[in-house]
Amino acid sequence: MTQEALLQCHRLIAPHVHNTPVLTSRQINAMVGGEVFFKCENFQRAGAYKIRGAAHAILRLPKARRKKGVVTHSSGNFAQALALAAQTLGVPAHIVMPRTAPKIKKQGVKAYGGTIYECEPNLKAREGMAAEIKAKTGASFLHPSNNEDVILGQGTAAVELLESQPQLRAIFCPVGGGGLIAGSALAAHHLGTDCRVLGGEPFAVDDAYRSLLSGKIEGNDSTDTIADGLKTVLGDKNFPIIQQHVEKIVRVTEDEIVLAMRLVWERMKMVIEASSAVTVAALLRDAKENPERYRAKKTGVIISGGNVDLDRLPFG
Amino acid sequence: MTQEALLQCHRLIAPHVHNTPVLTSRQINAMVGGEVFFKCENFQRAGAYKIRGAAHAILRLPKARRKKGVVTHSSGNFAQALALAAQTLGVPAHIVMPRTAPKIKKQGVKAYGGTIYECEPNLKAREGMAAEIKAKTGASFLHPSNNEDVILGQGTAAVELLESQPQLRAIFCPVGGGGLIAGSALAAHHLGTDCRVLGGEPFAVDDAYRSLLSGKIEGNDSTDTIADGLKTVLGDKNFPIIQQHVEKIVRVTEDEIVLAMRLVWERMKMVIEASSAVTVAALLRDAKENPERYRAKKTGVIISGGNVDLDRLPFG
Repeated sequence: MTQEALLQCHRLIAPHVHNTPVLTSRQINAMVGGEVFFKCENFQRAGAYKIRGAAHAILRLPKARRKKGVVTHSSGNFAQALALAAQTLGVPAHIVMPRTAPKIKKQGVKAYGGTIYECEPNLKAREGMAAEIKAKTGASFLHPSNNEDVILGQGTAAVELLESQPQLRAIFCPVGGGGLIAGSALAAHHLGTDCRVLGGEPFAVDDAYRSLLSGKIEGNDSTDTIADGLKTVLGDKNFPIIQQHVEKIVRVTEDEIVLAMRLVWERMKMVIEASSAVTVAALLRDAKENPERYRAKKTGVIISGGNVDLDRLPFG
Repeated sequence: MTQEALLQCHRLIAPHVHNTPVLTSRQINAMVGGEVFFKCENFQRAGAYKIRGAAHAILRLPKARRKKGVVTHSSGNFAQALALAAQTLGVPAHIVMPRTAPKIKKQGVKAYGGTIYECEPNLKAREGMAAEIKAKTGASFLHPSNNEDVILGQGTAAVELLESQPQLRAIFCPVGGGGLIAGSALAAHHLGTDCRVLGGEPFAVDDAYRSLLSGKIEGNDSTDTIADGLKTVLGDKNFPIIQQHVEKIVRVTEDEIVLAMRLVWERMKMVIEASSAVTVAALLRDAKENPERYRAKKTGVIISGGNVDLDRLPFG
């Protein structure tokens, strides 16, 4: 995927997404020993970066296919994002969600006019139901992360971050299905100057970490993490990009995730979800282990989203 | 207090405070029927607008008096603000706090180098201990709200809001000790164009509401509200300004406060404290009762702070 494809994608979706603010925190700078720039996709439309890829994937469909609608399966943020992007572009959206998905994310999908189909919380059930809907309605299936148009769209957050801070030496992303980090890696490769890309992943679902070690896409035996957006595994479209352009995956404990979440809420007064706190925790851990890589340097962090169920917080 | 005094104050403190962002929410606009502009003092240094008045009051002290330090009593945000302002300006800060004050606010005072003196949670105990410290150290007593330099300082949030949005037709503020709303009322009077100022107050501590009715400063029989910053009563310096320039006080229930807090956290992804949610709730209530005063008009809201104890949240 070329630099031109990435920049064209950004031009295409720009009218439909926010160019979100880039914020800083003196305290976190002091902890890291250098400047940290947070790209705040929690302030994005529908509360997460996912609308970037969703809008791009819909905009790339031929008009005749758009009319028949789109279908996806998602544990949360891509569901809301596709519903909102589809509503914005006048397209029906069919959304398969695990019945265990956070209430606020289901409410979001409904509010944006999407039709929800609940299924059991496993990949097979999700894929099966999505295939059924596709067969019945003729809707186009859009995978939340393993789709080139989605990957390019997700990369536009890093495009904007690098426009705002061209001298970043590293960008941290969370790793779930791999769309965001693959897109960000393309952006850093095409537009950055010696800009490394690093992933954050919970120890509990460290499939991407193990996939990079083994050289093939690994699964997770369990999904017992607070970071509900990061339970999915990589796909064959984004894994090669990650292999080529991502320096490493930093794994963090559940305690580190909650501490990082509390730090950002308390100090930056921002609501970020646990999956985003993973990325902050990964930066804090790596800056402790390799301080010279951050000292007096500029580091970017993609804050992926802020869709939190306030009735199920890890504090107190 | 003249327009020139207000603008001079703003110039004086500008190097020491953030010009905080002004944010909007499509959903809240839709609920109100017009545009709402949130002046986000939760992103201010020390997490609240209070540093504006604290810095100004210190900067107005003669140099010889500054050296002996400052002393105040505060349930929270002014305590942190004075400690940070004093640290910034190289002045010792003695802070009297009720022992029941939120843990995060006490931690803040310590982190900013202030010395904490704990007292019983009532006005008499607070005033007594502050007087004792003043006698012992020669420190200057700075009242958190009933001080002309503090009032001018707090008014600079509205100065910046009106610079950003000159066509505001109303500004909502919370009412605790009265410093913020008095300062905001001066700003709207001097710099606004037909800009009303309204206060938000919990029914549980509606002393300002009753004071405006009776024409004299009223107290509160109880202080049973989640809005811990609004339990204090008006003073003789700010009450006359409020009488002259504030249109009315809108009272809200505890349920309305929690709902408004949840709305801002969930939709705007911002951490705001309950005292700030009071102001949002007051706007929502008044916009429901008097929709024509908001429809297609611009309204400002001062989000006073974001210092929340995450271990004691009203959700879940």
